[in-house]
Amino acid sequence: MSQLLLKNIRPLEGDPVDLLAVDGTIQNISTGISPPSPDTTVIEGENRILIPGFVDCHTHIDKTFWGLPWQRHQAGPSLIDRIENERRLRREMKLSPETQSENQVRQAIRMGTTHIRTHVDVDTEIGLGHIEGVLATKERFKDYVSIQTVAFPQSGMLIRPGTVELLEEAIRAGANLIGGIDPCSMDRDPAGHLNTIFDIADRHGTGVDIHVHEPGMLGGFTLEMIAERTKALGFQGKVNISHAFCLGMVNAEYLNQLIDLLQENSISIMSHAPGYVAFPPIKKLFEDGVVLCSGSDGIRDSWGPYGNADMLERAMLLGYRSNFRKDEDLEMCLEIVTSGGARVMGAEQYGLEAGCRADFVLLSGETRTEAVVSRGKRNLVVKNGLITARDGDCLV
Amino acid sequence: MSQLLLKNIRPLEGDPVDLLAVDGTIQNISTGISPPSPDTTVIEGENRILIPGFVDCHTHIDKTFWGLPWQRHQAGPSLIDRIENERRLRREMKLSPETQSENQVRQAIRMGTTHIRTHVDVDTEIGLGHIEGVLATKERFKDYVSIQTVAFPQSGMLIRPGTVELLEEAIRAGANLIGGIDPCSMDRDPAGHLNTIFDIADRHGTGVDIHVHEPGMLGGFTLEMIAERTKALGFQGKVNISHAFCLGMVNAEYLNQLIDLLQENSISIMSHAPGYVAFPPIKKLFEDGVVLCSGSDGIRDSWGPYGNADMLERAMLLGYRSNFRKDEDLEMCLEIVTSGGARVMGAEQYGLEAGCRADFVLLSGETRTEAVVSRGKRNLVVKNGLITARDGDCLV
Repeated sequence: MSQLLLKNIRPLEGDPVDLLAVDGTIQNISTGISPPSPDTTVIEGENRILIPGFVDCHTHIDKTFWGLPWQRHQAGPSLIDRIENERRLRREMKLSPETQSENQVRQAIRMGTTHIRTHVDVDTEIGLGHIEGVLATKERFKDYVSIQTVAFPQSGMLIRPGTVELLEEAIRAGANLIGGIDPCSMDRDPAGHLNTIFDIADRHGTGVDIHVHEPGMLGGFTLEMIAERTKALGFQGKVNISHAFCLGMVNAEYLNQLIDLLQENSISIMSHAPGYVAFPPIKKLFEDGVVLCSGSDGIRDSWGPYGNADMLERAMLLGYRSNFRKDEDLEMCLEIVTSGGARVMGAEQYGLEAGCRADFVLLSGETRTEAVVSRGKRNLVVKNGLITARDGDCLV
Repeated sequence: MSQLLLKNIRPLEGDPVDLLAVDGTIQNISTGISPPSPDTTVIEGENRILIPGFVDCHTHIDKTFWGLPWQRHQAGPSLIDRIENERRLRREMKLSPETQSENQVRQAIRMGTTHIRTHVDVDTEIGLGHIEGVLATKERFKDYVSIQTVAFPQSGMLIRPGTVELLEEAIRAGANLIGGIDPCSMDRDPAGHLNTIFDIADRHGTGVDIHVHEPGMLGGFTLEMIAERTKALGFQGKVNISHAFCLGMVNAEYLNQLIDLLQENSISIMSHAPGYVAFPPIKKLFEDGVVLCSGSDGIRDSWGPYGNADMLERAMLLGYRSNFRKDEDLEMCLEIVTSGGARVMGAEQYGLEAGCRADFVLLSGETRTEAVVSRGKRNLVVKNGLITARDGDCLV
């Protein structure tokens, strides 16, 4: 029976208490807990803030260059340039999706992440190679981080014959969700694209997580199409839309119509706080009850050099890009990168209460907002009651 | 005679060399340098990247809450709300501008900064109190960081009678430049505002550094008015415009007209890469030959909670907000937060060549771009040949 006792920690910056986890579950949070046995691992929390483990709900761990010699960025500016550049580099560099995903997972653990949803490329050139690599990493790290995989047609689906069959094979091989990308602007057949992925999801009982970069009214149209299928198939609570830049571009009246569709169909939204393009109005969506999550998106890959797999930095960027200055708004950002993501991933027993899984991270800072803006070393990261990182070092 | 020898460092990521600094000046950069005397301080650089010290060319060190108990943010959304909130907090908290500026300066040194231009509030309520506090800090740290002060009418100038006289007193007391703020939207008299500050600058032989937040065509009009006065008074090379959001808002034709005015009058532009508002098109300005600098702006003050005084993070934000992905573009951002700022501050002998001041910082990372995106601990910070910070600790 493994026992972990944290002394003097402040859950969500509350008053100092102790926390006892037994066999991976939080058993007790109160003051003055004594170690139940001589074998109990006791950690002095020094009044640090305890929050539930970070949820990186949108990334691409199969494609990162993390751990490789530095690659100078070469892609042109368009989406298709970047996809073609990625395919070329993939051939030239002979990356191992297993090794690369493992590198990113270790970095994520260092930064306090306990849950990851990753999109994994599936196409006619690599087949299921990336899915297999990531599933191997998922298995190896199963005690240390919860990983969900999305079978993702990065290079287009209907426009590359054979991809649909591969996506379905990926689901059979163990991918958790079916992905999609820009049904109008990339696949040029929104109804065909969405019917295909919802059909696969329906037959296999999986959720859907679809990339929508399409701007303005075009993106809005795609969101309408997604909502129609979510409703028709009873997929409420099983659909996430990633990026949805259009929500930051349409007028207020149409935005409200789209939010109604998201709410009625329990469709969640992921934003990574892009640096340069409009993005969803976080606070309005949050206040209107839309479930929000965030993620690192690609980290140091052929798409760009940014990213540290640090969801605390992601919370900062969400706030910085949204012009949030009040503490309660940055606390909302912290909620998005923790419990928001957990809801999207359907993580059970997530939180800081007795009965919850012992998945948490200890942060420096007087308040949560200070933790977000200062982003110091993660003092302790725990998953399933096991210490996975300490003082910035990954221990697994 | 103080001697500092760095072994195996890579200036701007070039090939590994050694660097010898004697009495605060770089004497030699080449391979295989031996310590000239037994007293030479020798540092093993481990092939890290050496860059010139960071230049934080726009901040407000008199007003930071750094080092105080966390303050929850309370200001309303408008500029006037924020100014009034700041004035109220200033009265209630009884901040010491000397202590607070010292706290920020130490943090900046930890992060690799060797040069700071700070705007310092002057108004009818605090008089010269902030100027005096910052000048005391400037004197105390004179060997460790170069500080320029701008007498800044944060609360408005013509609209608060008595402010003009105080600004001139601030210059007499030792402030290096005269500041200004939104001549149209705040002071409601652009010609009066600009004539006043250019007159003070002209009579005292100082430069001008003016905040312009005004949007679109209004900001463009203010830039025209500034350029007219710069030309009339022969102030080329002595005027910096901070923020200049309007340059990111106007149409391409008018943007080119404004850039011509900036070039013809050697007016530099400061952008801190705001999170939420349009900002100057960095690459176009850079390529058109406009001198650019950047800064932290306010750090953890009544205006907002963000900021670490880390100019490497500022380079990342400039790139992230500009959608820069190529290495050469992030190298440009690094240039802006180093040599760009040095040009604006008129720092002499700045650079990594024999004869330059020994002001530099040692960074981890295989390349400059990796240093920008990963932003690790600063391994060594040197100012005037003195070690001011090591492994993230400020030593002065």
